[in-house]
Amino acid sequence: MHSLHRALFQPRRIALVGASSDPKRLTARAQLYLRKHGYQGDILPVHPREAEVLGERAWPTVADIPGTVDFAYILLNTPQVEGVVEAVAAKGIPAACVLADGFAEAGPEGAARQSRLLATAKRAGLRILGPNSMGVVNLNDRIACSVNAALEADSLPAGRIALVSQSGSMMGAIMSRGAARGIGFSHLVGTGNEADLTAGEVAGLLVDDPQVDAILLFLEAIREPRHFADLARRAHAAGKPVIAYKLGRSPYGAELATSHTGALAGSDAAAEAFFRAHGILRVTTLEALIELPALARAARPPAQPKRAVSVTTTTGGGGAMAVDCLGVAGIEARAPDAAAGAKLDAAGIAHHGRLLDLTLAGAKPDRVAAAIDALQAAGDTDLVLSVIGSSAQFRPQDAVAGIVRARDAGGAKPVAAFLVPQADASLRLLAEAGIPAFRTPESAADCIRAWCDWQAPRAAAAAPAVAHALPARPDEADARHLLAALGLTSPFAVLRSPQDPAPDLRFPVALKILSPDLAHKTEVGGVRLYIPDAATLAAEAAAMQARVAAAAPAARLTGFLVQPMAKGLGEAILGFRRDPEVGPVVLLGTGGITAELFRDVTLCLAPVTEHEAMAMIAEVKGLRPLGGWRGLPRGDLAALARAVVALSRLAAREDIAEAEINPLIIHPGSEGVTVADAWAVPAG
Amino acid sequence: MHSLHRALFQPRRIALVGASSDPKRLTARAQLYLRKHGYQGDILPVHPREAEVLGERAWPTVADIPGTVDFAYILLNTPQVEGVVEAVAAKGIPAACVLADGFAEAGPEGAARQSRLLATAKRAGLRILGPNSMGVVNLNDRIACSVNAALEADSLPAGRIALVSQSGSMMGAIMSRGAARGIGFSHLVGTGNEADLTAGEVAGLLVDDPQVDAILLFLEAIREPRHFADLARRAHAAGKPVIAYKLGRSPYGAELATSHTGALAGSDAAAEAFFRAHGILRVTTLEALIELPALARAARPPAQPKRAVSVTTTTGGGGAMAVDCLGVAGIEARAPDAAAGAKLDAAGIAHHGRLLDLTLAGAKPDRVAAAIDALQAAGDTDLVLSVIGSSAQFRPQDAVAGIVRARDAGGAKPVAAFLVPQADASLRLLAEAGIPAFRTPESAADCIRAWCDWQAPRAAAAAPAVAHALPARPDEADARHLLAALGLTSPFAVLRSPQDPAPDLRFPVALKILSPDLAHKTEVGGVRLYIPDAATLAAEAAAMQARVAAAAPAARLTGFLVQPMAKGLGEAILGFRRDPEVGPVVLLGTGGITAELFRDVTLCLAPVTEHEAMAMIAEVKGLRPLGGWRGLPRGDLAALARAVVALSRLAAREDIAEAEINPLIIHPGSEGVTVADAWAVPAG
Repeated sequence: MHSLHRALFQPRRIALVGASSDPKRLTARAQLYLRKHGYQGDILPVHPREAEVLGERAWPTVADIPGTVDFAYILLNTPQVEGVVEAVAAKGIPAACVLADGFAEAGPEGAARQSRLLATAKRAGLRILGPNSMGVVNLNDRIACSVNAALEADSLPAGRIALVSQSGSMMGAIMSRGAARGIGFSHLVGTGNEADLTAGEVAGLLVDDPQVDAILLFLEAIREPRHFADLARRAHAAGKPVIAYKLGRSPYGAELATSHTGALAGSDAAAEAFFRAHGILRVTTLEALIELPALARAARPPAQPKRAVSVTTTTGGGGAMAVDCLGVAGIEARAPDAAAGAKLDAAGIAHHGRLLDLTLAGAKPDRVAAAIDALQAAGDTDLVLSVIGSSAQFRPQDAVAGIVRARDAGGAKPVAAFLVPQADASLRLLAEAGIPAFRTPESAADCIRAWCDWQAPRAAAAAPAVAHALPARPDEADARHLLAALGLTSPFAVLRSPQDPAPDLRFPVALKILSPDLAHKTEVGGVRLYIPDAATLAAEAAAMQARVAAAAPAARLTGFLVQPMAKGLGEAILGFRRDPEVGPVVLLGTGGITAELFRDVTLCLAPVTEHEAMAMIAEVKGLRPLGGWRGLPRGDLAALARAVVALSRLAAREDIAEAEINPLIIHPGSEGVTVADAWAVPAG
Repeated sequence: MHSLHRALFQPRRIALVGASSDPKRLTARAQLYLRKHGYQGDILPVHPREAEVLGERAWPTVADIPGTVDFAYILLNTPQVEGVVEAVAAKGIPAACVLADGFAEAGPEGAARQSRLLATAKRAGLRILGPNSMGVVNLNDRIACSVNAALEADSLPAGRIALVSQSGSMMGAIMSRGAARGIGFSHLVGTGNEADLTAGEVAGLLVDDPQVDAILLFLEAIREPRHFADLARRAHAAGKPVIAYKLGRSPYGAELATSHTGALAGSDAAAEAFFRAHGILRVTTLEALIELPALARAARPPAQPKRAVSVTTTTGGGGAMAVDCLGVAGIEARAPDAAAGAKLDAAGIAHHGRLLDLTLAGAKPDRVAAAIDALQAAGDTDLVLSVIGSSAQFRPQDAVAGIVRARDAGGAKPVAAFLVPQADASLRLLAEAGIPAFRTPESAADCIRAWCDWQAPRAAAAAPAVAHALPARPDEADARHLLAALGLTSPFAVLRSPQDPAPDLRFPVALKILSPDLAHKTEVGGVRLYIPDAATLAAEAAAMQARVAAAAPAARLTGFLVQPMAKGLGEAILGFRRDPEVGPVVLLGTGGITAELFRDVTLCLAPVTEHEAMAMIAEVKGLRPLGGWRGLPRGDLAALARAVVALSRLAAREDIAEAEINPLIIHPGSEGVTVADAWAVPAG
């Protein structure tokens, strides 16, 4: 294992810098919890005055500690942290965790403090967890180096799921919810502000840990996306699912995540695209985070998931509720197909419709097992869900036995359970048996949806370097030249003055003022459409120049753009930008006000392949009519896909921050697309 | 109380018809559970052979039972039910419950069986619960007349919440989930197939029950909407919230609800409109059903809810998660306003942004109470949510004390709690104190959203009778005459033959074939647009007649419809129909394919007022540009609202099943609307 892994997760000597001798204080907890949960190594409190802290020999400074130290937990107040980090680094300790807050999340002064802290650590090769970190817990090795109050519990079930959380308090919340139903954890780490170590990098250290089967992430922000990409790729290779819950699905949550951690918030759609591209499962209900690992470990979804399940139940209403919630999540509960139907008939189990109701056949384990076994034969579903009613509450062994038996028979699909009543004992039995079990119909639907969405990390699309230079203050012609260099050309010409000869373009044409300073040309009279001939063009250009100069005297006018009037079957908006969290993305939406009214936009990490671009096109509802919907004439969607690919290649151009084509006109058949308006913004 | 109320909920003598003497059998359970939970009245088993059943004196037939009987639970197999219902009716028993299935949900034969059962009961004045009913439980009076396995529990907490469920098994599931956190029930009733007594009527019996403070409904279908309307109106007057969970949000769930109960499924949008109109709170997460009563009992939302809350937390990550989930549900967590900020300052509590984080101030009860008290002063929020972290797990009394103290101080807004870790003891303490508490951020958001949406039952809009007759097979002209009678007129004329004189309309005009048999006129060449003058009109009509006669020789052609070409700022689709569950509804959406692509449609119970029609218009995204959005020209939305009101008046016309205007053209300013196409369908 990596030496950093040892320092963080299997330290043999831990310095507790600023440990309090008052057991009621927060800063005493790490020492108390380490002892309470059976830490076998050396606990080394550092205290300026006391010779002993809570029964352990204490040292006045870090430098005074004899021998090597693997890990330091710095429990001091904010102003004292900087000085001691210097000492920790000087002592040659490889990793330290900082509890205090008041760093990047606390305004410019805190941010400067964090920068200095990081610079000190970097110089000495010291890795920092935090600031604002609740510490590290390794339950299998009984190392509870944390101040998290969840460690008050007398015993905590160890397991094979690791949790890396930017929020320290969520470590305890998730651990306690797991413990109540027998779901244990291997590691719990709070990464806090992530001045140095990010959740992605810490989780990456756990991929090769033999104690870990699955990794959970509780995220407020994505910092250093490459760490997550690397984590996800390696976890996929190792067969270990990575499951994320990320805040920021609402604007208020996004704002909080920003203010709470000092990170810049990107768009949730970009985060969603990021998780999908990297094969990270994303859940949106809290308890799905602890329920999904068992399912993800049981099996990967088929390469072409049917997004459909077989459902059997011992309670009609509860089964119907599960089917309904699954349907809301876009997962269809399907009636047994011919193969499954034949096996049900052979087993003497009546079936009818989407829900295999065993109420009449009896909820005995052999009937449940036979039903699940028969549904395993269905060729058109991805998973078998067994819904259990009152037996889960009163006869847990019976309720679970049929499901376990069916799972052990080894069908092709995973078997999961949803327990309708309060049924803690049954949940524990299922957890012990490694069978995915859901406590609510909503988390059942969330988990199964996330599992169906789960894909292997995509291979990054090739993005050939495009050398074309963009001026510091580009006008529309510059943007169009850049697009042409990317392989996306539409006829246009530039006049530098009204007296320039008319371009060789098909009339009627549109005439637009060129200026790097005018984002809105129409408002200053800088657009004229349907100009019929060269003479009118010259006259209009002269009039436009005078008009715009009067309306926007400060704007630098660089000439005129002329383009043939074009009309297509539809319009799209096509954009490129750099999301502050996940980096370059390409977005595609319906053109005009429709995209805005209905938020009819899809987004993908850039660059994309043509295959991915076609998938994006399929996701935009407003483009559906161009695909031959209801017999309407088809648009050139292949050309649209090539345009998406072309623009997405700006990902390789770090010097370009944003670009947009709005509208991109889509012509019928194979007549291509036309750039009707475009702009680009250099980075910085 | 109503005599039926006594028979169902406080029977003193219960006949168990078909009670088994084998305690393992389902049909023995009612007797066992009645005794187990302390029933004080007479249990009267009816058994053809045994003189004693499970220790009680048994009677060979219902007629043999001496004295009056209040309630009969018929536990016999399906084929035996009919005969015994006759005997129960003859005995003068006022109410009976039927356990067996195999009735309306089981095909035509079962439906016929159910009809006969009902006819027998009606003749004798016997009210029927079921078939397919799990029975009735009254926990305060210790009457557990049910076969629901949840009654295996040794004790069940009695409370003041009644549950009426079409699904018998959900009675147990909901009761057990409530019991686990100290939420008790007063009554639990399974209404099953509802051959006679519907959930609405049964719930209506409980409105005036002094043991009941809130009524929960678990519904698969809405039968007899007037019962629910009556229930809701009376419950509102009595200050008792009615809260519903209804299946059918997905098409698969809707299909199951139908097949499971033999009901016809309406649209979920219609059900949603129904609940809203009648002031029934609808939840979409299972546990919200048990969590919302405490909130709804604590307070009604303001008449003009801000859809905003104040949030304080003792855990940063958990609080942020709550804020994010609320935001997804459309509820904003707002930063303290000046008034609340001043009180926080006075209390020495630092505040910053949307989330009042007490982590630094300390989670002590007095700080939590002071924070909630200060947030009560905020003028721009509807509710205070207190998010509690690890103290909820380890120090329940402390965790809850501040919230209870703040609630007891009696602020204007309700105070609710979300507990981030597993914290059963704290949930129980909060339940005892009557403080709304949420177990997950999703159910917190669902409950608070449902509560903000909660309105008083609306007064039914006036629907003046419109006497205009519609032929049995109406053509478009008939539909337009009907619309005109409703007050919605647009210029048009009818030619009975191509030779008729040209109408006095503004040219250019559109010409359409008139036929009750042709739903799609364009396909048979039955539409011509932009006809410039009278001569062309006559020629086109003659050509059209020949063309359509050739293309659709079987269609009866009733003439031609002529209308001026009209162009507006936008188009709407406006429809009327009778939902199989909730009855007459009016729907409004964007015109053209946009409505279909984006499901951009809203729906309201008909008839509606102009105020309601304006609210509908505001809900249709595609109509937003007509409201002056982004400086676009305004459409005549007042005329659109009047059109909605006019069409909605068809509610009073039982003889009309459906009508639609598509498109309805919306003109600028106050230039009105134009019916561009219309049809109507008589009932039956």
